[in-house]
Amino acid sequence: MQIELLTTGTELLLGTTQNTHGAWIGQRLLRVGLRVSRQITVPDGEAVGRAMRIGLEGGEALIVTGGLGPTSDDLTREALAEVLGLEMIEDEAAMRAIEEFFARRQRVMAEANRKQAQAPVGADILVNPNGTAPGLYLPPRLSGSFNCAVFLLPGPPRELYPMFEAEVVPRLQALSGIEKVPEFLELKFAGIGESDFHEGIDDVLEAIPGLEHGYCARPGEVDLRLMGSAASIREAGEIVRATFGDELVSDDGANLEDVVVDLLAKRGRTLAIAESCTGGLIASRITDVAGSSEVFRYGFVTYANEAKQELVGVSQDALRSHGAVSDPVARQMAEGALKAGEADIAVAVTGIAGPAGGSEEKPVGTVFLGLAERGRETQVYQQFHPWARAAFKRQVSQSALNLVRLTLGR
Amino acid sequence: MQIELLTTGTELLLGTTQNTHGAWIGQRLLRVGLRVSRQITVPDGEAVGRAMRIGLEGGEALIVTGGLGPTSDDLTREALAEVLGLEMIEDEAAMRAIEEFFARRQRVMAEANRKQAQAPVGADILVNPNGTAPGLYLPPRLSGSFNCAVFLLPGPPRELYPMFEAEVVPRLQALSGIEKVPEFLELKFAGIGESDFHEGIDDVLEAIPGLEHGYCARPGEVDLRLMGSAASIREAGEIVRATFGDELVSDDGANLEDVVVDLLAKRGRTLAIAESCTGGLIASRITDVAGSSEVFRYGFVTYANEAKQELVGVSQDALRSHGAVSDPVARQMAEGALKAGEADIAVAVTGIAGPAGGSEEKPVGTVFLGLAERGRETQVYQQFHPWARAAFKRQVSQSALNLVRLTLGR
Repeated sequence: MQIELLTTGTELLLGTTQNTHGAWIGQRLLRVGLRVSRQITVPDGEAVGRAMRIGLEGGEALIVTGGLGPTSDDLTREALAEVLGLEMIEDEAAMRAIEEFFARRQRVMAEANRKQAQAPVGADILVNPNGTAPGLYLPPRLSGSFNCAVFLLPGPPRELYPMFEAEVVPRLQALSGIEKVPEFLELKFAGIGESDFHEGIDDVLEAIPGLEHGYCARPGEVDLRLMGSAASIREAGEIVRATFGDELVSDDGANLEDVVVDLLAKRGRTLAIAESCTGGLIASRITDVAGSSEVFRYGFVTYANEAKQELVGVSQDALRSHGAVSDPVARQMAEGALKAGEADIAVAVTGIAGPAGGSEEKPVGTVFLGLAERGRETQVYQQFHPWARAAFKRQVSQSALNLVRLTLGR
Repeated sequence: MQIELLTTGTELLLGTTQNTHGAWIGQRLLRVGLRVSRQITVPDGEAVGRAMRIGLEGGEALIVTGGLGPTSDDLTREALAEVLGLEMIEDEAAMRAIEEFFARRQRVMAEANRKQAQAPVGADILVNPNGTAPGLYLPPRLSGSFNCAVFLLPGPPRELYPMFEAEVVPRLQALSGIEKVPEFLELKFAGIGESDFHEGIDDVLEAIPGLEHGYCARPGEVDLRLMGSAASIREAGEIVRATFGDELVSDDGANLEDVVVDLLAKRGRTLAIAESCTGGLIASRITDVAGSSEVFRYGFVTYANEAKQELVGVSQDALRSHGAVSDPVARQMAEGALKAGEADIAVAVTGIAGPAGGSEEKPVGTVFLGLAERGRETQVYQQFHPWARAAFKRQVSQSALNLVRLTLGR
């Protein structure tokens, strides 16, 4: 089923407001086996009518958000009536709902709000318990030769989302005639990139009948999306697990930090973190997880050499002989954090985030990661991530958390 | 000038990735007096060509993002060549840049990457220092009767943004012929919200002839955008400064953390941070700023009570009598961080991020902020931010950094 989404609002194109309707609606529809075929975003004004025409031509359903307010630049209703040549009348039930909305709040209704009750004959009024703007639904026959169902919906998320759930999803399901929802699986990986899939098993996945797959890559992580029959997803899942089992973080949408906190809790172990180049990001990600206080107690942001010495006991000798960004310092930071943080496992990172501080031998992007554990030998890994500062920090935090995950999952 | 933006990527419509290109590009163009007229988002595949045609018909410039990768679903180049009936050849310079990208990373180039060097005759290759995909620029004459300039750009932000800045903005400015950019001023505020403007001076700004203004609000911060004649912006700026001067963080796009690091450097002072409920986020924001190592040396993530005692010397008595989320503990954390962190100024936060841990007396969202300074009395502030975990952390980090800013600006 071709579903067109038209999001309207000048602020969306000025960039002062993120356009989040597309992602929210996309996610919601995916769960009932539907997809948005195309999204068009236009400013308030005459561009709305032109974009509606494109949507009506391309789609079996057109969803329009925004422009249902009482002010002069809210013209979605009028634009649709004009494009379709429909007559608008004041809908009694809609008028009553608006009046009641104001009455409940003991406010006087402005005359401008009256236009919000206008609707084409034959349209369904979609009740809006969270605002004054009722939505509208036009069944396909009202759009004449376009033969396209149309939904006009309010823009503010707290009005849009409940209306979408209650009024739009059931109607789209009925229109699409989809009874059985296609299966969907999202697998999250760390420590490999999209190119590892392309060089590894992309061809194999491509060849599975009835399977669609896609990737979404970010620094240090990649998500693999599988859609299709239950059998094809099972087959793909087995292949992926056999190839990249160690790198698989989750198959239920959980982030790396969620998985690490969960593993720590299950194993009854606590984590300490010593950070130089990530400057607190690893600790911040861990503490994004509700309940992390059970497993994370001490974090050391040892940005200066003195901090490395005083907080986690790095030796002056190691700093002098090898430099702050070195194997021995990462090792001592991890071991020092384990001890000072009274933890069962500790991870430490020291690297050169740039833009300054690089050298021929240790260019910007160089990082050492240390992992210390009670009763085991400390591990140190050297990596190279020559990205801009923010991406470097994110990538290193990802490597560090993944190291903890692998250690715990062992 | 009509600028059409086409963002491509199946994940954008599935909702698994937020489409942030539109907002970023919109903001960037606004600064040079240009606006995006329409944005279309389509999945990878044949929809790209159809959407290109719509963009070429409607626009004087068409910007396309995504689909320049080496894999089989990266078809933007091919789609454009087909729509415009152009022949593609391998561009030598582009091929060399891709080979060098791999050589620098000591990796072998896959054969699939070869197609990334394909370009229509007469197109400019846009260098990509941050990835393998070169961008392409086609001057209007190459699009025949469409007479529309075309930019093909990579999707990943760290590749897109620098290329947009260096290659796209100057070409669009030249194409648009706009000599005099409408004046633009963005003022960033902390410690007040959009409603403070509505209740305060929004009417006054509204009444200034020739001025357009708008807001963008996030937890603990709000940006005010002024556009119009130089005189109207000057007038508005004066009114705003007279009303909310203390809350004004910057008028040059600098973030709160940039301003704090800059103030610390100018004053020759160092900062220490002790964090409980923000779990490292404040330190991470400070270390997002290049050069922060000059002014920030020690961070303490004291998530557990023991950590508060051992790292920053909070007394067991204070913890027992008042609880970890209290005025005395915030005070001792700040004073302890000042001492242990050998700093000139220290900020500390302790609060209840939720969802668990709240009580009748101290509900979820309660936070105490402490600020200690050499030779001055320590200040403690109580705030209440009953938001979801991530927004709470962000808001508290904002309050803490703003406290440092106000102290330094005194």
